[in-house]
Amino acid sequence: MKPFQAPIEDILFSLNHVAGANGLATWDAEFAAEIGGHFAAFAEGEIAPLDEPGDLQGCRLENGRVSMPDGFAEVYRAYAEQGWPSLTVPEEYGGQGMGGLIHAITSEVFSGANHSLQMVTGLVPGAVRTILRFGTDDQKARYIPPLTSGETLATMCLTEPGAGSDLSRVRCKAEPSKKGWSITGEKIFISGGDQDLSERILHLVLARTSDDGIKGLSLFLCPCTRTDGSRNSVTITRIEEKMGLHASPTCQMAFDGAEAELIGEEGKGLAAMFTMMNHARADVALQGVAHAARACDIASAYAAERTQGRGPDGAPITLDGHADVRRMLTEIDRLAVGGRAISHLAFVLMEQGGNSELVDFLTPVAKVFCTEAGMRGAELGMQVLGGYGYLKEYRLEQTYRDCRITAIYEGANGIHERVLATRLAPGHPGDAFAAFVEAELASHPGTRIENALTEWKASRQQLQEAPDASILAHGFMQQTIDTLLACVWARIAWVADEHPNPARMKRLCDR
Amino acid sequence: MKPFQAPIEDILFSLNHVAGANGLATWDAEFAAEIGGHFAAFAEGEIAPLDEPGDLQGCRLENGRVSMPDGFAEVYRAYAEQGWPSLTVPEEYGGQGMGGLIHAITSEVFSGANHSLQMVTGLVPGAVRTILRFGTDDQKARYIPPLTSGETLATMCLTEPGAGSDLSRVRCKAEPSKKGWSITGEKIFISGGDQDLSERILHLVLARTSDDGIKGLSLFLCPCTRTDGSRNSVTITRIEEKMGLHASPTCQMAFDGAEAELIGEEGKGLAAMFTMMNHARADVALQGVAHAARACDIASAYAAERTQGRGPDGAPITLDGHADVRRMLTEIDRLAVGGRAISHLAFVLMEQGGNSELVDFLTPVAKVFCTEAGMRGAELGMQVLGGYGYLKEYRLEQTYRDCRITAIYEGANGIHERVLATRLAPGHPGDAFAAFVEAELASHPGTRIENALTEWKASRQQLQEAPDASILAHGFMQQTIDTLLACVWARIAWVADEHPNPARMKRLCDR
Repeated sequence: MKPFQAPIEDILFSLNHVAGANGLATWDAEFAAEIGGHFAAFAEGEIAPLDEPGDLQGCRLENGRVSMPDGFAEVYRAYAEQGWPSLTVPEEYGGQGMGGLIHAITSEVFSGANHSLQMVTGLVPGAVRTILRFGTDDQKARYIPPLTSGETLATMCLTEPGAGSDLSRVRCKAEPSKKGWSITGEKIFISGGDQDLSERILHLVLARTSDDGIKGLSLFLCPCTRTDGSRNSVTITRIEEKMGLHASPTCQMAFDGAEAELIGEEGKGLAAMFTMMNHARADVALQGVAHAARACDIASAYAAERTQGRGPDGAPITLDGHADVRRMLTEIDRLAVGGRAISHLAFVLMEQGGNSELVDFLTPVAKVFCTEAGMRGAELGMQVLGGYGYLKEYRLEQTYRDCRITAIYEGANGIHERVLATRLAPGHPGDAFAAFVEAELASHPGTRIENALTEWKASRQQLQEAPDASILAHGFMQQTIDTLLACVWARIAWVADEHPNPARMKRLCDR
Repeated sequence: MKPFQAPIEDILFSLNHVAGANGLATWDAEFAAEIGGHFAAFAEGEIAPLDEPGDLQGCRLENGRVSMPDGFAEVYRAYAEQGWPSLTVPEEYGGQGMGGLIHAITSEVFSGANHSLQMVTGLVPGAVRTILRFGTDDQKARYIPPLTSGETLATMCLTEPGAGSDLSRVRCKAEPSKKGWSITGEKIFISGGDQDLSERILHLVLARTSDDGIKGLSLFLCPCTRTDGSRNSVTITRIEEKMGLHASPTCQMAFDGAEAELIGEEGKGLAAMFTMMNHARADVALQGVAHAARACDIASAYAAERTQGRGPDGAPITLDGHADVRRMLTEIDRLAVGGRAISHLAFVLMEQGGNSELVDFLTPVAKVFCTEAGMRGAELGMQVLGGYGYLKEYRLEQTYRDCRITAIYEGANGIHERVLATRLAPGHPGDAFAAFVEAELASHPGTRIENALTEWKASRQQLQEAPDASILAHGFMQQTIDTLLACVWARIAWVADEHPNPARMKRLCDR
């Protein structure tokens, strides 16, 4: 099997030159490369080697506590000691105060090395951001430093047995108590609901404070330990048996009068939760990119080594000498590079600030395209390996199983398509996207963007006039992706020479 | 989890009315329905319940012998006792002498119920066909009756570590010996290379009788037991750890001077083997159809029960009330119904005899489309179930894992695409296909077939003029599939009223 290799050159090229981080005043490309290199070395050397054994061993629930696979606690300790959880936290809370773009580097590398561990640790930045935005000064002072040091990990407790995509059905109840609030109810599909990595866990729980549908939902901070130091009334009732991500414990949890404190305003829990979810969604897009990149790496290495068939001169050739295999390898590479560029574009816009409508528009597009890129990349990669790809030995089958969830969680892709078609595209965020593509066309004139834009506008018009736009949602998302990709490939063609391997980038653009 | 339900009504409709079995003199539709109903009941009641436990338990290799999961031996005994292996074997060898179309019914149902067990038992009809065609009378008399009774199961031993898609690299050697031939070498990826279901196993082995590339390959019958009753020198050296099909032992085998007899002419092993492989390929197409149909069944049942979200009037609705979910369910249904129709078309042509060039043309098209239909159907089905789809509990994840191999084995899909583009389409089989589509257009006039045919002809022309047609192979296959599907949906629209649920068929055609 091919050891994990972080695609750090591709990532830096994409961020700096394609997505335009280089143009930001706050961005130090050399420093980013250094940090990225450090994290890549750590991920390759220590995190990735646990990916396969973690998949085989899985998590266990014993006496109400979850055990992670062997070695995970040790590597998490090193991760915390090296200060990785603190990267983007403001300095006043013990963080290193780096911009969010650094996170785009480490998050993708982490997911490629070990998606399961990334999931269990990956909600911290979103939790910090939520507390920074909605918490009181006292809450910030109490909760952020332990998240920064790695002492505490965070969870996001939304889903319930009857409430998946439709959060208005949340029944978990929060009632005022002597010590603040008391939460009672059941949550399911909670990643890292328990684990033995961090000393403490902070649950961000969406619970009902009144019967008023979505408006009756509030967000709570619910630590695993009460203020008096005793264990809070939060129980893990089971961990799910899944197709993949066996090293990420997916917990069913019972809150039985658990002590909690409100964060943000009562009845505005969904808005607060979305701060966390939007962060998680950007991460999920990068997970898709990471899987496509990993599939590309494994398949390319295999195809370059495996001799099979003969060339036009009758001499034996390697797999990558066959037109069909080359087509598949190029396609996987395009999925990874194209998806990454779309993700990075959104990250750079977020960092710039100011065009939040375009960010809103791009977030679901990146989530859908990148997660599909991961699935399609893993599928094609497995096809390149043939029968060997179906074996556990070559690891692509783990990529294939692990990446499948990305199209489902953090909003099923169909939900994102509907949001795009019914809420974002018809209004101002749609205008922002049209303006973005027009600007791209002005910078990189060409019929591909021009035609895509004309068709996209016509479809948007249709959408605005349709009695039920949700029927058009799937097709509209695909068209939006095509339009965005036309821009992205034009940008990549423009800056291909900045890549250490310009010929590869040009070949990808040429398709 | 939803118990397996054989889509017997859809199968009979497709065979009889869409593929035109009803027009064959040798076909007794009522009798076929009766046999199909019996097998469906057996599959639903006895075979399918072993599918999940078989996946969880898997196969074991102990002391050189393979153990199948619990219960598999018992259900195989019942299968043999009820005479299922004998269905299509001529009566003179103890069979029931039914036409090959019956096999299209039972094979799909079997794969839907338990793909693993179907694989281990499914090579018998192909082995019988190969022996009937290439064996001596003596070989027929000795080998066919035990295959018919179920006493013997068959394997197909082609692949070697260095010889996957490129069989010219086969190194396994056959040398004349006192008792016939002696085979020495290694084979990998042999389904059912050993098992504890049948008393005996007959290996059909492709081995080298001279150094002359493909022309140096011959086919051998290599029973697990020597003529003197001792165990033949065939050893299972390992069974593979795979992503799915855990109840199908994929064996690595060592032949160490194994006693064998030549079947057919020396140096013409590949042609003989292709008789078996073509049969296996038709079966693989049905496996894809079976998985798509199973995914459709599970997802439809779930979507009809699960309440989520609200309708335009504000009242809670089930998942299948959402436009996006309906789109996915319809798509899965179309994949299953469309794929089945293409498969059945080829089966009916085979049964008719006479147009072997069209059969040659359709075989790779059916293999590619139906296996992709299985993968896509499983993917969409899982998406409908959301997070629950990713759990082992709802079983779609097994469908997702099991069906993945179908696009790889029996000729990777890319190989079939190349064969179509470089060998079949440019020549007479391409003419046969064009004539078929023209006839379909004459019977069902419409712009969809007309446009598809015009474009297909233009692409074929391009193919014939291209210096290297293999570069165009993937796109050409997709276009051929689209053209064929246009014909198939026109046929289905024409006969929709013959289906027990005509509204469903019409809805599928309307898309």
